[in-house]
Amino acid sequence: MSVLEGINSKALKTGDLPPPSPSPNTFRIYSMRFCPAAQRALIYASVKKIPSEVININLQQKPDWYFTKNYKGQVPTLEHAEGKKLVIESAVIPEYLDDIFPETKILPSDPYEKVQQKLLLERLSDQLTPAFGRVFRAIKNPEELKEKFESILKAFEEAESLLEGAFYSGTSSPGFVDYLIYPSFQRVYWLTFLLEIFPLPSDNFPGPGYPKLSQWFKAITAIPEVAAASQSTENGVGSCKEYMKGLPYFDYGL
Amino acid sequence: MSVLEGINSKALKTGDLPPPSPSPNTFRIYSMRFCPAAQRALIYASVKKIPSEVININLQQKPDWYFTKNYKGQVPTLEHAEGKKLVIESAVIPEYLDDIFPETKILPSDPYEKVQQKLLLERLSDQLTPAFGRVFRAIKNPEELKEKFESILKAFEEAESLLEGAFYSGTSSPGFVDYLIYPSFQRVYWLTFLLEIFPLPSDNFPGPGYPKLSQWFKAITAIPEVAAASQSTENGVGSCKEYMKGLPYFDYGL
Repeated sequence: MSVLEGINSKALKTGDLPPPSPSPNTFRIYSMRFCPAAQRALIYASVKKIPSEVININLQQKPDWYFTKNYKGQVPTLEHAEGKKLVIESAVIPEYLDDIFPETKILPSDPYEKVQQKLLLERLSDQLTPAFGRVFRAIKNPEELKEKFESILKAFEEAESLLEGAFYSGTSSPGFVDYLIYPSFQRVYWLTFLLEIFPLPSDNFPGPGYPKLSQWFKAITAIPEVAAASQSTENGVGSCKEYMKGLPYFDYGL
Repeated sequence: MSVLEGINSKALKTGDLPPPSPSPNTFRIYSMRFCPAAQRALIYASVKKIPSEVININLQQKPDWYFTKNYKGQVPTLEHAEGKKLVIESAVIPEYLDDIFPETKILPSDPYEKVQQKLLLERLSDQLTPAFGRVFRAIKNPEELKEKFESILKAFEEAESLLEGAFYSGTSSPGFVDYLIYPSFQRVYWLTFLLEIFPLPSDNFPGPGYPKLSQWFKAITAIPEVAAASQSTENGVGSCKEYMKGLPYFDYGL
């Protein structure tokens, strides 16, 4: 059973009252069902089996009180200790969860191995995140779109070359980088269903040009704790379609 | 005496041979004398009293071999263990130095206090770094410049409001945030000598509108270990003038 209570709750929006502070031993994650950054925190909590209450936020009509939780108004935000502790940023919350729950530590204890994982995540994100953003913003313009595909392919080539073993963690099981970068790859996977001209296949994604990445994507997708923290392909693709039509998509599929 | 050997060595450029790998117990920091990011690593090493060898890099004519140390070609890079260990990124190297030299740890041990320091640094940097960049790029255009001053002043107002005690570390002595954000404030201080119309004074910088920050800047500037890792105002201002004229400035004052 998932430890993420309310992962599919409706998004709170302007005018909605704030939820009461979490009780002493409850962890709360402010999220948005289709946000890849928030998904990082959800995956980490799920893998570490930290029972968490998920509150979804409508990012187009943010409740005013949400800025007292996160001055940027972004997700994810982690809240605990009856609301007295707030931690933001998708690359920071997981390390914090490792620090406070060292018995299920995912990051390596060795300082050099740990810092290399953090830097590798940043390296992959620095390529993938803007590449996906460029494609997504150009989605209604076929001419511009083809050009933007190049940056996706370049990011995938680099990601393939940086994957030395089965996992980015460098060990026989997934680690920090694998869990945190997965949402970015999953977003590109959704694009394969949205765009007929997309240069990567849905089948055995990202396809024969990327043998290591294809194995990797299949392995991560199959992990039950990752699946429990992720939206289905159907909902993911459907929410993107709504977004493209300019419709509210936060509660898609509920 | 400073632990930073070679802090004022000439910058290596295209065609210059790479230095031999550092010996077993030597720490090396690739830097550029006027780079605020690299200065973070130098200050941290200085405060922690880690004897380090500084190699300066000409960032306009980078030696090819430097990309094997840092794939982005940026500074700082920390190299040790006879060249087998390389760590990049100005906000990451200091935490790594704390992890490998915990006896002189600057970041708090408590996970929540630690993560708050890291997030506060990011919050201050996210405002100050682009604000300084905007002014510096507009430096030859007085009309545009005045507009860009607004973002500096906004960043300083926020920085003043976020300074709750004497130091950003929240304790009676400087900490991680104080040491790492200082180079950004120092760059703005240099601007007060460069631009007659700059809205902040050199005297008791940043002046009476920012009483807490003025005390803070004075206190940090006076720390011998910080001074040993920083360039003089004369060199800093002089290097900016050369830069504005389009002249090479990396070895200014040597």
